[in-house]
Amino acid sequence: MFERSIISQGHLIDSGIMSRILNLIIDEKADYKIIDFTIGKKQDEISYLEILLICDSAEKLNSVTEKLVLLGAWEKGAAEPLLKTADRDGAVPPDFYSTSNHRTEIYYQGDWHKVSKQRMDAMIRKTSAGFECIKLRDVRKGDLILCGSDSVRLFPPDAERQSEGFGFMTNDVSSERSDNIAVRKVAETLEEMKAQGKKAVVVAGPVVVHTGGAGALAALIREGYIQGFLGGNAIAVHDLESQFYGTSLGVDLTTGKPTHGGHFHHMRAINKINTYGSISAAIKAGEIKAGLMYEVVKSGIPYCLAGSIRDDGPLPETVMDMIEAQNRYSEIIKGTDMLLMLSTMLHSIGAGNMTPSWVKTICVDINPAVVTKLSDRGTGQAVGIVSDVGLFLRTLANQMGLVYGD
Amino acid sequence: MFERSIISQGHLIDSGIMSRILNLIIDEKADYKIIDFTIGKKQDEISYLEILLICDSAEKLNSVTEKLVLLGAWEKGAAEPLLKTADRDGAVPPDFYSTSNHRTEIYYQGDWHKVSKQRMDAMIRKTSAGFECIKLRDVRKGDLILCGSDSVRLFPPDAERQSEGFGFMTNDVSSERSDNIAVRKVAETLEEMKAQGKKAVVVAGPVVVHTGGAGALAALIREGYIQGFLGGNAIAVHDLESQFYGTSLGVDLTTGKPTHGGHFHHMRAINKINTYGSISAAIKAGEIKAGLMYEVVKSGIPYCLAGSIRDDGPLPETVMDMIEAQNRYSEIIKGTDMLLMLSTMLHSIGAGNMTPSWVKTICVDINPAVVTKLSDRGTGQAVGIVSDVGLFLRTLANQMGLVYGD
Amino acid sequence: MFERSIISQGHLIDSGIMSRILNLIIDEKADYKIIDFTIGKKQDEISYLEILLICDSAEKLNSVTEKLVLLGAWEKGAAEPLLKTADRDGAVPPDFYSTSNHRTEIYYQGDWHKVSKQRMDAMIRKTSAGFECIKLRDVRKGDLILCGSDSVRLFPPDAERQSEGFGFMTNDVSSERSDNIAVRKVAETLEEMKAQGKKAVVVAGPVVVHTGGAGALAALIREGYIQGFLGGNAIAVHDLESQFYGTSLGVDLTTGKPTHGGHFHHMRAINKINTYGSISAAIKAGEIKAGLMYEVVKSGIPYCLAGSIRDDGPLPETVMDMIEAQNRYSEIIKGTDMLLMLSTMLHSIGAGNMTPSWVKTICVDINPAVVTKLSDRGTGQAVGIVSDVGLFLRTLANQMGLVYGD
Amino acid sequence: MFERSIISQGHLIDSGIMSRILNLIIDEKADYKIIDFTIGKKQDEISYLEILLICDSAEKLNSVTEKLVLLGAWEKGAAEPLLKTADRDGAVPPDFYSTSNHRTEIYYQGDWHKVSKQRMDAMIRKTSAGFECIKLRDVRKGDLILCGSDSVRLFPPDAERQSEGFGFMTNDVSSERSDNIAVRKVAETLEEMKAQGKKAVVVAGPVVVHTGGAGALAALIREGYIQGFLGGNAIAVHDLESQFYGTSLGVDLTTGKPTHGGHFHHMRAINKINTYGSISAAIKAGEIKAGLMYEVVKSGIPYCLAGSIRDDGPLPETVMDMIEAQNRYSEIIKGTDMLLMLSTMLHSIGAGNMTPSWVKTICVDINPAVVTKLSDRGTGQAVGIVSDVGLFLRTLANQMGLVYGD
Repeated sequence: MFERSIISQGHLIDSGIMSRILNLIIDEKADYKIIDFTIGKKQDEISYLEILLICDSAEKLNSVTEKLVLLGAWEKGAAEPLLKTADRDGAVPPDFYSTSNHRTEIYYQGDWHKVSKQRMDAMIRKTSAGFECIKLRDVRKGDLILCGSDSVRLFPPDAERQSEGFGFMTNDVSSERSDNIAVRKVAETLEEMKAQGKKAVVVAGPVVVHTGGAGALAALIREGYIQGFLGGNAIAVHDLESQFYGTSLGVDLTTGKPTHGGHFHHMRAINKINTYGSISAAIKAGEIKAGLMYEVVKSGIPYCLAGSIRDDGPLPETVMDMIEAQNRYSEIIKGTDMLLMLSTMLHSIGAGNMTPSWVKTICVDINPAVVTKLSDRGTGQAVGIVSDVGLFLRTLANQMGLVYGD
Repeated sequence: MFERSIISQGHLIDSGIMSRILNLIIDEKADYKIIDFTIGKKQDEISYLEILLICDSAEKLNSVTEKLVLLGAWEKGAAEPLLKTADRDGAVPPDFYSTSNHRTEIYYQGDWHKVSKQRMDAMIRKTSAGFECIKLRDVRKGDLILCGSDSVRLFPPDAERQSEGFGFMTNDVSSERSDNIAVRKVAETLEEMKAQGKKAVVVAGPVVVHTGGAGALAALIREGYIQGFLGGNAIAVHDLESQFYGTSLGVDLTTGKPTHGGHFHHMRAINKINTYGSISAAIKAGEIKAGLMYEVVKSGIPYCLAGSIRDDGPLPETVMDMIEAQNRYSEIIKGTDMLLMLSTMLHSIGAGNMTPSWVKTICVDINPAVVTKLSDRGTGQAVGIVSDVGLFLRTLANQMGLVYGD
Repeated sequence: MFERSIISQGHLIDSGIMSRILNLIIDEKADYKIIDFTIGKKQDEISYLEILLICDSAEKLNSVTEKLVLLGAWEKGAAEPLLKTADRDGAVPPDFYSTSNHRTEIYYQGDWHKVSKQRMDAMIRKTSAGFECIKLRDVRKGDLILCGSDSVRLFPPDAERQSEGFGFMTNDVSSERSDNIAVRKVAETLEEMKAQGKKAVVVAGPVVVHTGGAGALAALIREGYIQGFLGGNAIAVHDLESQFYGTSLGVDLTTGKPTHGGHFHHMRAINKINTYGSISAAIKAGEIKAGLMYEVVKSGIPYCLAGSIRDDGPLPETVMDMIEAQNRYSEIIKGTDMLLMLSTMLHSIGAGNMTPSWVKTICVDINPAVVTKLSDRGTGQAVGIVSDVGLFLRTLANQMGLVYGD
Repeated sequence: MFERSIISQGHLIDSGIMSRILNLIIDEKADYKIIDFTIGKKQDEISYLEILLICDSAEKLNSVTEKLVLLGAWEKGAAEPLLKTADRDGAVPPDFYSTSNHRTEIYYQGDWHKVSKQRMDAMIRKTSAGFECIKLRDVRKGDLILCGSDSVRLFPPDAERQSEGFGFMTNDVSSERSDNIAVRKVAETLEEMKAQGKKAVVVAGPVVVHTGGAGALAALIREGYIQGFLGGNAIAVHDLESQFYGTSLGVDLTTGKPTHGGHFHHMRAINKINTYGSISAAIKAGEIKAGLMYEVVKSGIPYCLAGSIRDDGPLPETVMDMIEAQNRYSEIIKGTDMLLMLSTMLHSIGAGNMTPSWVKTICVDINPAVVTKLSDRGTGQAVGIVSDVGLFLRTLANQMGLVYGD
């Protein structure tokens, strides 16, 4: 085995830095032994940690050390810096050290030296005056450039240490991620859950219909991936409207254009159901032959449409007493292993309130603020996917090989 | 032919209402003859329009009349109202009239009567006192309900008449639309343009790479759908980073997770290119074998990477003098028939500034405010698609039958 | 008087361009006489309009003509172009013509000539080959630059003509406006309405409390500016929580920091009210002495707290039956002259549904998409103010000279 | 002193839970002594922590214990539960225990019992079958309700322990905060920094002008609170446009309305400066007498306007070579103690790249995604204020007693 003594000093416990050091080593599939650990009892007393880092190769030892340096740890009896010469302007040896924006020191001739002109994404150049940050484009042939990180130690500010460390794209909710990966993960999870007989409940808003995702969601339900359906009056009304008239809130779902007089459609859809007395009566009468509500009713999974102050109609199925609606939601959520929230903040917060934190919770919304709000309301376990919910559901159904109408 | 005289009165020209009446008739594939038109010379003089509406069926005549009523027109010598009886609680005859929120009058016994309790999505009930709005759920068996719209006239407020009329979902930029339709239209347009030898130019931001859309865009370029490529330093850097290290800004594009130390990658990618001296030299050396920049360079289409205050590096290809960058952008845009803007506000506004208004301009962004901003900066012809750009490009490439790597 | 003949030709009615020409003249406090107007009966027949523009000064005549040119009109028997010489590099005479991105023609030697290199924000230079767009920085001493707009005509694309014309910042909802102006207008409107005995109703969400605006809103109610209050369970709970514990959803309203265990507070607040039986009983008992709900109850204005699927508790006052809640909302809205919507999409859409379109409707929200959504749901009369609602209310109260606690 | 032994067990280090326990005690101004601490060496070995909690009052001892319970710690030799009887329906004793959504156990008759029907914001009722969550409204007179938290222990999922614990509103960036508090803190910080001779640098975008904040920012500069100014071409152009014509991008800053032909104004403003040769020449000539750029130039603080691909003109002062612009930015940022970023993502990321992480960094933007993006680009120290920048600056200047024109 290859071993190296690593030291970290400072507010290791209260800043969480000790956790992050040990976690990183485990994540990297390396090992450690704690040599010395003195804990600071109060906020103004610093802690001291010395560990033996154990790796199965010299390369691993170097790469893990490099990452520990980013957390403010350093090698005991640090090595003298590895300085290599740039052999052309604007380019450096490939193992160069790339800076963060944290205060940086280099171990050199037996002592630690502060790096000047600190900034991120720079190289470190050795000059006669000491060490300094230099931009790649300013490097000149012959410059002495720091390589590797054995001789580096960092001083992240406390806030940084507690939260993120230095890094890019570490926020959990961002519209700059590949939704494709998210789709694949959700598909795998749904397949697995079905195979294991687990329970998945969907909470969905009318945007699912407006953005053309209702068919794909209907297919998921038809194929037995979903064991409960929660929504409001609107998602059912617009699904029915689309079945009857091909529009959603008056917008033609094939052309994407508002139809003249199309805003009548949702009231006509409600009236038609009222004439039959219920959605299931209209299905029995052969009036509805496909779509989201059709599959919900046909599949026999429990569902609840919770009313709200903004509802038209409502449909006979919509529960307008909120006490009763909360009770029914709660009944359907009981024992669920996953909640899939699809573009409805209101019903998602409602469902989140009654769901234990150990339930896997996924929230798809085009607005990143929705996930922040869910978490601010206590549903901290929610994982956000910032995406158009229609494209998301269609891509998901394609990925899972499901057939659905347009 | 079936004909009917229609009257409209008011600020027909300045409110734009006359345009909307005539356009609606043409849109509905009906015809008209102008019988009388007196134009109000000043703002306080009203205009009077009488037209003969001509349709090829009685049904069409009724449906077009119904829509004209929504614009505040009415039948000359309006018909007495068609009142039908509700034959159960909470449901009405299927040809019921559904209200808007505008002031409404009913022609009854030779005169116009104002409807009370005005609100949207209601029915109109005849009582002994006159006409009133009533919610569907409050309708009782035996109520007299207004059907059809022959006896209705509306008074939209001026602002409404000028802009939208009454309707839902008439805003052009909204995240509540079906992106699927948008994808289909863009696909058809690109196919057509290629067949006709037209020119399409792409302006793209780094989010294309982060969200996993670079492969799909590369396929569009490889297959000859794109004749010019505009971007900044970042999209090229992250595309190269993904080719060299499988990450984009340090995030693993397969797992979606930040990699420890991954924030080094983009600087390493720049350094590698600097070592070769240029992207095309690195391609010639066999260092880059696929990806967006690979296809851009291989295809020989003109491209420009415009620098900015936030660039690292930059790459040797990035033009850091903005005067020169604007000139090159302008050169590439010259004669283009379409601009496809992919999630970069900065470069899109830049490109929009130099593009004539008759160029078809499409802007894909997950943030609806970007299209508003483009239009506020003078590029009013831009059509917005609110979507995750990665999913959008992948769905587009799938739709067009293109093969692309993950 | 000063007069000039102006011509416009094309799809004047269906594009709305005629409306915009006549409106512009009236807006500019000039006058017109219609000399000739031939209307195109069908979409492929163009209309012809000739008007006599009448102004009270030669300057006015020039400035109005200049603006009409932007709408695609031109002077009959257009003047030869006014060409002036640039007397230094990069600067032009102050009355230069600044281009739009629309196709542009110049009347020169008796005929119309197309301008080449069309782009926005450029100057027009006369060369031996004709007229071309040139960027300000590319102008050289001695260049012949077009001044004034007497010899210019424009061809906006149809979509442009229908909607905006060329211009910046013409979208109604944008976060790039001065909220200060909006505050002043709302203040004036409220003062006026109070003086005239008109009715204003507020619909408010819990963000009003979280962002520190509750005190200012309470002052508006106390001073008699508001005649009805609509909300949900949460705004009342958090207002009470802030009165009892100084926190809103556990966040200290003085320091902005979450308090340890503060998430208990809202449940404790509900329990305290439940112990008294109602908010007004708690006020009578001296338990609540200030705040939003205090002023609502004290003032005696009608109010309704509508429940929802996400409510905790709820408070005894919260109406959990949505049929009843809609009825109460509707009762309170009846006869109102203004609806002020404060950061609650759910309750705003609900209130909007039951409000006639002639009611002045103002919607304050930090998210511009909320106003788009309101309008997509039929409440097209809503005017949006994109702002932090807390700062908005405090600035409003300051502007109106109202005293309020922190 | 009052003391109590507290135990916590589990992945205390890697989950960061130990840090949070010790920090909470210090935050609460209590004290502790570590009695026993056994650290788990590997991920599958759990750690054991026993501390003596020391408080100066029995009340404090109870309240701190209650909060420690939320972190999954419990009292050594836990007390039997305090069960009190509800003396009316729907209300409970004021010291009731309010649940989180985490798995919960109660110490009862010498053993730990799991609570059933787990959900957040509920009470815990003792029934013959054990303990269960019950909603406040379902509590009936006579129910036995758990009070205090001495007998409670929680099991937050690992992700929760690492990040947030249970709580509301713990996200750093949210539009649901009181900006008023933020204004006060920024005001205090600026006053303090000025008193101590520290350096503050502003990075500002054109929205500052559009939203009416330029006068307030100018006052801050005039009064010596700002030691460096960074921006782009647009903020300077629009400030000058507003000085010359009273508009910003053609919008009248007093009425908020677009002016006919107002889009000429920004080009006219650039042309006027070009005629003088520079902003400072125009100031010397008496052409500019107030405003943002006037104060920037008058105060003599260093400034840089960095060009971009989207600039019109540009102004003579705008640096169009990005290498040079980055160098000047970097020079101005050197040694700064604070960066105040005002609604410009581009320049903020640029400035952030060259700024060490120990510089206090504040970012004001109406779009919460901007702060997320800054942090994803490595500037993790940025503190976000989601607000309208115009209202923010005006409120800030008012708070500081500064005089500024409208």
